Amino acid sequence: MEDTVEQPKAHGPHGYSARKDDHVKRLRRIEGQIRGLQRMVEQDEYCIDILTQVSASTKALQSFALSLLEEHLRHCVADAVEHGGPEADDKVAEATAAIARLLRS
Amino acid sequence: MEDTVEQPKAHGPHGYSARKDDHVKRLRRIEGQIRGLQRMVEQDEYCIDILTQVSASTKALQSFALSLLEEHLRHCVADAVEHGGPEADDKVAEATAAIARLLRS
Amino acid sequence: MEDTVEQPKAHGPHGYSARKDDHVKRLRRIEGQIRGLQRMVEQDEYCIDILTQVSASTKALQSFALSLLEEHLRHCVADAVEHGGPEADDKVAEATAAIARLLRS
Amino acid sequence: MEDTVEQPKAHGPHGYSARKDDHVKRLRRIEGQIRGLQRMVEQDEYCIDILTQVSASTKALQSFALSLLEEHLRHCVADAVEHGGPEADDKVAEATAAIARLLRS
Repeated sequence: MEDTVEQPKAHGPHGYSARKDDHVKRLRRIEGQIRGLQRMVEQDEYCIDILTQVSASTKALQSFALSLLEEHLRHCVADAVEHGGPEADDKVAEATAAIARLLRS
Repeated sequence: MEDTVEQPKAHGPHGYSARKDDHVKRLRRIEGQIRGLQRMVEQDEYCIDILTQVSASTKALQSFALSLLEEHLRHCVADAVEHGGPEADDKVAEATAAIARLLRS
Repeated sequence: MEDTVEQPKAHGPHGYSARKDDHVKRLRRIEGQIRGLQRMVEQDEYCIDILTQVSASTKALQSFALSLLEEHLRHCVADAVEHGGPEADDKVAEATAAIARLLRS
Repeated sequence: MEDTVEQPKAHGPHGYSARKDDHVKRLRRIEGQIRGLQRMVEQDEYCIDILTQVSASTKALQSFALSLLEEHLRHCVADAVEHGGPEADDKVAEATAAIARLLRS
């Protein structure tokens, strides 16, 4: 949260900060999809149609995760690599663990 | 919520209707997780923490899908199989296609 | 491939038995892909190209699993449903657990 | 295939080269699992047991992919970042696309 005024733009608090509005908009759309799922269940819609909508929401979440991950690699991980040392290795290991969690979810 | 008393049990509107309240509650929790993600982005939380939360939401969605699918197999597909004929085959093909979409999402 | 004439159709050894040759051919192709991956690693091919080939093999495995699952639902699960009783429920629960493992892998 | 004697170890042809033997061993084990699947189908083993074995093989492939990806980020992507310029961005975009393919497979 070190967002001091002097902070050079390229560093923002985090890699994704520059596109914060896009990300929030995207998440609001996903929130709308989840509310749509609630309505489908309440109105007794056909199970298979609900499952199709679940697949669409999962895809949208994965796609949000990928864009966040790309910015993380481009900024946070790249910064750590430029500074070198053990922190670079830690950042790469941390990103790989996050990718593993996405693959398993 | 059109569950009138006369409705023959085996047909309920759908296999999942008996547990409608559970499903809606589950989806509300997922909706809360998505709103949590919006807050995390707005408050510039660390990318990796956001990705961890995305994995949790995706897992919750998949788990909702699995319980819906189980009820669908237990009721809709089983009913079709008991009636026999080409409809049984169609129902199995339809369920398999839904599972394929979940696997790919 | 309904081996012997006497074999009662509904029981064949399993739902997938009729298409055994297809399944084995499919698995041999996947085995070939895995050997291809070994060659790629041995010949120092580019990491991203190897990852692309891993995705293709995973997709082929998932697609084999889906065709096996479809036959399982169509035969074993349908048989259990026709016989009714707790075994039908068990078969559906068992199939759902297998789908959950595929989703998590 | 450790091309030239002079090749500085840290660069090898690729990030994963240092652990080539590990990777090949791992892929041979996966090849053995795929051959095990062929035997299971030929011996009419129970569909669900085959599906369980497919999940294990898919998991092993994903885990191989993750270790390759980690080395790729640690070496190839880090190198590109140190050299800077558009190539660094390209490498990150390429790695993200590979992760997307893994997620969808």
